[in-house]
Amino acid sequence: MMICKFCQKKAIIRLPYARLSLCQVHFNEFMVKKVLKSIKRYKMISKGDRILVAVSGGKDSTTLLHILSLLSSTLNIELYGIYIDLGLGEYSEKSKQKVKELFKLLNIEHVIVDLKESLGFKVPELSKLSKRPTCSVCGLIKRYVLNVIALNLKANSIATGHTMDDMIAYILKEFILGNYGQLVKLKPKLEAIAGLMPARIKPLVEVSERESLVYALVNNLPIYHGECPYRPQESIEVEIKSFFNMLETRHPGIKIQFLRKFFKGEAVNLKDVTLGEIKKCSICGMPSSTDVCALCKLIYRIEGSYNRILEFLDKINSIELLR
Amino acid sequence: MMICKFCQKKAIIRLPYARLSLCQVHFNEFMVKKVLKSIKRYKMISKGDRILVAVSGGKDSTTLLHILSLLSSTLNIELYGIYIDLGLGEYSEKSKQKVKELFKLLNIEHVIVDLKESLGFKVPELSKLSKRPTCSVCGLIKRYVLNVIALNLKANSIATGHTMDDMIAYILKEFILGNYGQLVKLKPKLEAIAGLMPARIKPLVEVSERESLVYALVNNLPIYHGECPYRPQESIEVEIKSFFNMLETRHPGIKIQFLRKFFKGEAVNLKDVTLGEIKKCSICGMPSSTDVCALCKLIYRIEGSYNRILEFLDKINSIELLR
Repeated sequence: MMICKFCQKKAIIRLPYARLSLCQVHFNEFMVKKVLKSIKRYKMISKGDRILVAVSGGKDSTTLLHILSLLSSTLNIELYGIYIDLGLGEYSEKSKQKVKELFKLLNIEHVIVDLKESLGFKVPELSKLSKRPTCSVCGLIKRYVLNVIALNLKANSIATGHTMDDMIAYILKEFILGNYGQLVKLKPKLEAIAGLMPARIKPLVEVSERESLVYALVNNLPIYHGECPYRPQESIEVEIKSFFNMLETRHPGIKIQFLRKFFKGEAVNLKDVTLGEIKKCSICGMPSSTDVCALCKLIYRIEGSYNRILEFLDKINSIELLR
Repeated sequence: MMICKFCQKKAIIRLPYARLSLCQVHFNEFMVKKVLKSIKRYKMISKGDRILVAVSGGKDSTTLLHILSLLSSTLNIELYGIYIDLGLGEYSEKSKQKVKELFKLLNIEHVIVDLKESLGFKVPELSKLSKRPTCSVCGLIKRYVLNVIALNLKANSIATGHTMDDMIAYILKEFILGNYGQLVKLKPKLEAIAGLMPARIKPLVEVSERESLVYALVNNLPIYHGECPYRPQESIEVEIKSFFNMLETRHPGIKIQFLRKFFKGEAVNLKDVTLGEIKKCSICGMPSSTDVCALCKLIYRIEGSYNRILEFLDKINSIELLR
């Protein structure tokens, strides 16, 4: 029997990179400490921060919200939750139910944005009408809504559940495809732009998907196991993740070593490449690198007018905060 | 039946990244043109160059020498071959026989350096006595001997059979391990340092291992299929190579796109990182980044004196050039 390094009880997980086997109690403690350390290492959070946590119903963002709520008094932060119903059929319905349970369980003030109700279109409809790929439209909508709600709630930062495995997959993907400019954005904290964009933080940046899944399971957190119906069956990210999981098995610790070195910023011309000037979209006032932002352009493409955007902003800005 | 794109004869190879199936004649033509294009793209060779080609008996360096000999009048270059007998038992014996056949077949002036005869030690003996890993000692010896012989023959450059797959594996390995400084050295041509070091060129930088193997086979070139007995069974390079072969199957062309973008030098701080000052070793006069070069240090560690190095230099400098 595998026993816990700290209490000799039955271990529920083996972590080769840390040379540890842990029981449920000590695994929970380990995870909370690990996230706290990452937050400090990368200076993600300051006292008094108001943090909007994006929750999808999946294992990663659920684990994130749970751990942040345990840390909220230590860190002296206020947490808000957000779920965006993107209109992806049964997947959205079922994940929304799980997120509602989670918000209730943790007693988190939260907002639920229904895209069909507020914008008049579900993601698949927007994708079809604009002839743009579903995943790209979905990412655009999520970034936009998170930003609007965070500004409305006067949140300093938006926290997402990206894991170590996600970050590695993104970094390697951009490196392999030669999109070096994208590499600057891939760090644990992207600083805020005053009045325009809150900071973006990734507190699970040193947590693996496996750890986040086990954490959600052993704590009986409400998670939805279904996969997005639009998720591509094969993708370079998925291929990189399985490659790195194989590497990690043979060379325990290689993932975290890679990320830590990468985040030191000596790998790429991180200093030379800037994010480009971010200004206010002349239509909706949200941040944009061009005169008119990507969402306004998308809506104009579909409707020949920007009216719907302003109604959308009004609607989501008046969504009530639930407890 | 798969037919050749250019002559409708039976094709012997399918190249998905180039959307081509080719017969033997047109595959040979394709390979020679491809190497010529790489040489021009990366400005590896100038008219009148004297090039020392390092040959091991394996598929890659054999294919390299064959193609360079076909291109020698077009490029107006003089070719010299070198084989280094590292004393790796049957592996060295059998590969030496193949290389001798190749030099004869192509009528190449060449040098054969026997390490045991000239230095008094085989690579495994040096490794054991110095307590340094075999592959690291072997790499050191090869670089040293190639340099001495190239300077002696007044060669402008040393050509090695590194393929696209080798380069990708080295680049990804150093990127993953965070050895960003090493990335500067990974390019198709490393410039010469006058009087100290000839240039180093890799004309097969856009040729895959599969292409180089098929080329050697269809042209009945003498190659030895055995593997070095000291080659590690598992290594991160091997793991990266199989990962990229899988990626290439699913995304044809991804390998060459990755390398071309990487070689543009925008990925990493290539300009900021320099190779460090290269000076003459105070003992043997060969290039070194420190006052005493790595081989002199190694021999001193074993023998407590540098005498053997000077004898070694005398011996290999007087090895006759064979035809």
